[in-house]
Amino acid sequence: MNVTVHGRTRHCRTVTFDRARNTVLLIEQRLLPHEFKIVAARHFRETADAIRDMIVRGAGAIGATAAYGLAQGALAFRGGDLRKFQRQVDTVYQTLKAARPTAVDPVNAMNDVCAAMRAGKTVGERQKLALVAAEEFADEDVRHCEAIGRHGVKLIRDGMKILTHCNAGWLAFVDVGTATAPMYAAQMQGKKFHVFCDETRPRSQGATLTAWELAQQNISHQVIADNAAGHLMQRGEIDLVIVGSDRTLGRTGEVTNKIGTYTKAVLAKRHGIPFYVAIPLSTIDWHLKSGFAIPIEERHECEVLGAWGVPMNSKFKIQNSELRHVRVANPTSGARNPGFDVTPPELITGIITPMGIFKPKELWKRRCELGFGGCGPSGET
Amino acid sequence: MNVTVHGRTRHCRTVTFDRARNTVLLIEQRLLPHEFKIVAARHFRETADAIRDMIVRGAGAIGATAAYGLAQGALAFRGGDLRKFQRQVDTVYQTLKAARPTAVDPVNAMNDVCAAMRAGKTVGERQKLALVAAEEFADEDVRHCEAIGRHGVKLIRDGMKILTHCNAGWLAFVDVGTATAPMYAAQMQGKKFHVFCDETRPRSQGATLTAWELAQQNISHQVIADNAAGHLMQRGEIDLVIVGSDRTLGRTGEVTNKIGTYTKAVLAKRHGIPFYVAIPLSTIDWHLKSGFAIPIEERHECEVLGAWGVPMNSKFKIQNSELRHVRVANPTSGARNPGFDVTPPELITGIITPMGIFKPKELWKRRCELGFGGCGPSGET
Repeated sequence: MNVTVHGRTRHCRTVTFDRARNTVLLIEQRLLPHEFKIVAARHFRETADAIRDMIVRGAGAIGATAAYGLAQGALAFRGGDLRKFQRQVDTVYQTLKAARPTAVDPVNAMNDVCAAMRAGKTVGERQKLALVAAEEFADEDVRHCEAIGRHGVKLIRDGMKILTHCNAGWLAFVDVGTATAPMYAAQMQGKKFHVFCDETRPRSQGATLTAWELAQQNISHQVIADNAAGHLMQRGEIDLVIVGSDRTLGRTGEVTNKIGTYTKAVLAKRHGIPFYVAIPLSTIDWHLKSGFAIPIEERHECEVLGAWGVPMNSKFKIQNSELRHVRVANPTSGARNPGFDVTPPELITGIITPMGIFKPKELWKRRCELGFGGCGPSGET
Repeated sequence: MNVTVHGRTRHCRTVTFDRARNTVLLIEQRLLPHEFKIVAARHFRETADAIRDMIVRGAGAIGATAAYGLAQGALAFRGGDLRKFQRQVDTVYQTLKAARPTAVDPVNAMNDVCAAMRAGKTVGERQKLALVAAEEFADEDVRHCEAIGRHGVKLIRDGMKILTHCNAGWLAFVDVGTATAPMYAAQMQGKKFHVFCDETRPRSQGATLTAWELAQQNISHQVIADNAAGHLMQRGEIDLVIVGSDRTLGRTGEVTNKIGTYTKAVLAKRHGIPFYVAIPLSTIDWHLKSGFAIPIEERHECEVLGAWGVPMNSKFKIQNSELRHVRVANPTSGARNPGFDVTPPELITGIITPMGIFKPKELWKRRCELGFGGCGPSGET
């Protein structure tokens, strides 16, 4: 999407590949929203570091980064020995996989690249195929987000006020994003609307990343404290909620997303406000049979006890060194910090997928078109 | 309640009066939870400054401070001229009233003191009566909070996990507090329980003041992000909610309190968790006929866009100069910041008053015992 630096607006993806320099180019997301910077990873180990150090985050974005990183490692190989080449590729694969061991997207992305490479008979062919496959993975991520936008845009009417939680925007993918995709599509159609970004404590991704995205795109928006949505709904100031998801259970329609999503769904239900979840197919879990089986990550208490920010008077561009973690809470108190919560299907109006909008309970019926791996040709498992 | 400084624990009120020095002593609440300090206001103008500059905050606490400030100003008068004395008292009254013009508690407290003074025939008598009335106002505030504790303690069973929002603790009153009163009473009875303190963004009074209070009192507690309560309720980890109130409508049972209270009430209802509101009688509004008529203060957006804290590595005592406001949010985004919300009576299990626990709709029926000014001898208005 658009980024404006020094008054110049240009289109940008979170991750791209510079073929001439065999370099992966990434937005340094840890500096956002305070500073915009592109980082060049010139070696596959630097690309792995970027994933590990959270320069890049978000399912689609780290998937594409790993795909490019694998191609980068393959392209760096010199010589024609196919066996040595394959050993190099294995090393690259393991290095990138180890950078974020619990994430599935890098593994899926790299498996795509490996599968494509197998059609090549020489090192040179395999190198070319690796890059084509990585580019294809990134482009498909964008196409899927755009498809979510095409389906979701119908939900947005002129003058609407939309609530979103956390960041399921283009920064988490290669471009366009999921929860934001309908908004960007609506803007393209000339619709006027306003977005409330939940701050999303404790890590404040709504106040930082989503607000930054919408500001760059000139979409009318305001940050609100996570406490404020209920009041705004009560006063009729929210017409629609769209959030993303980290894991959606295909069998039950339960949605795991950033802590606080469940609360917004409960409030939306009470006020009769439509609540939609926008998801890429890769986040559908076809195996788990109950949301209560989803392990909820308990994160470090320092996130709740403090906040990250820059000195308040520096209004715009700031130095990274100024970003600091301050302790907000009483210094002798501890905290609980569940990172995610589970929203049951009865609170969800619809799930916006690249294939269309479905009721949560419909996912399982539609599992074949939605890419369930265990689907036979007849649609039976 | 208890405060431990340099390893020594002592009992402390938020505001006391040093008769020998004609000085109002106040906890410097702006430094909490990072530093505990008592401020001496040696002149009624310093006492007014302390109210205006938020050294002291909270309905009961500023009421008692204004009462003491009025006595202080009266006691500072030298001579026997009753007319000159009364002019001095008027000046003091207006100065203290102007320190927090929208608050009703200082005015009510000072009116009590003025009414008591009228019984005196000489300057000396009036000075003595002023101080007695101010002390009585402070003591009554404590007695009312203790009575809330006596009624509310029955709700707390051994092993319970209790959620509270914002700070309706002793720091907001002269001592004991309202939402915290049942907890302190339960501790006295040897009950074991755990308190989750909602952080309460944007000003984080739960993470700072309530957490500090509970830590000083050695009550088991943890801070949680405002987003986390829904998840904890869903997993059966919250048994009871107790909050305070800034204004409760006597005619309808609607409760105005810090933004986010309504959300917690909606969640509690969904999960069948009892939701109680602890209130002093002074916060009952007997006039307004609808919660929608309550003006909701829109506060400055900088509260939502930033956070106040101290550098994270300084674990315990810190210097005030280190306390800083950092910008968390995207620097080119604005914010909405409603300060309060309104919780309807159907979400409230009971209102804990000094006179007992009532259903929200019962308040009007009980208006005579609850101090409704317009109550005739027959209980009719």
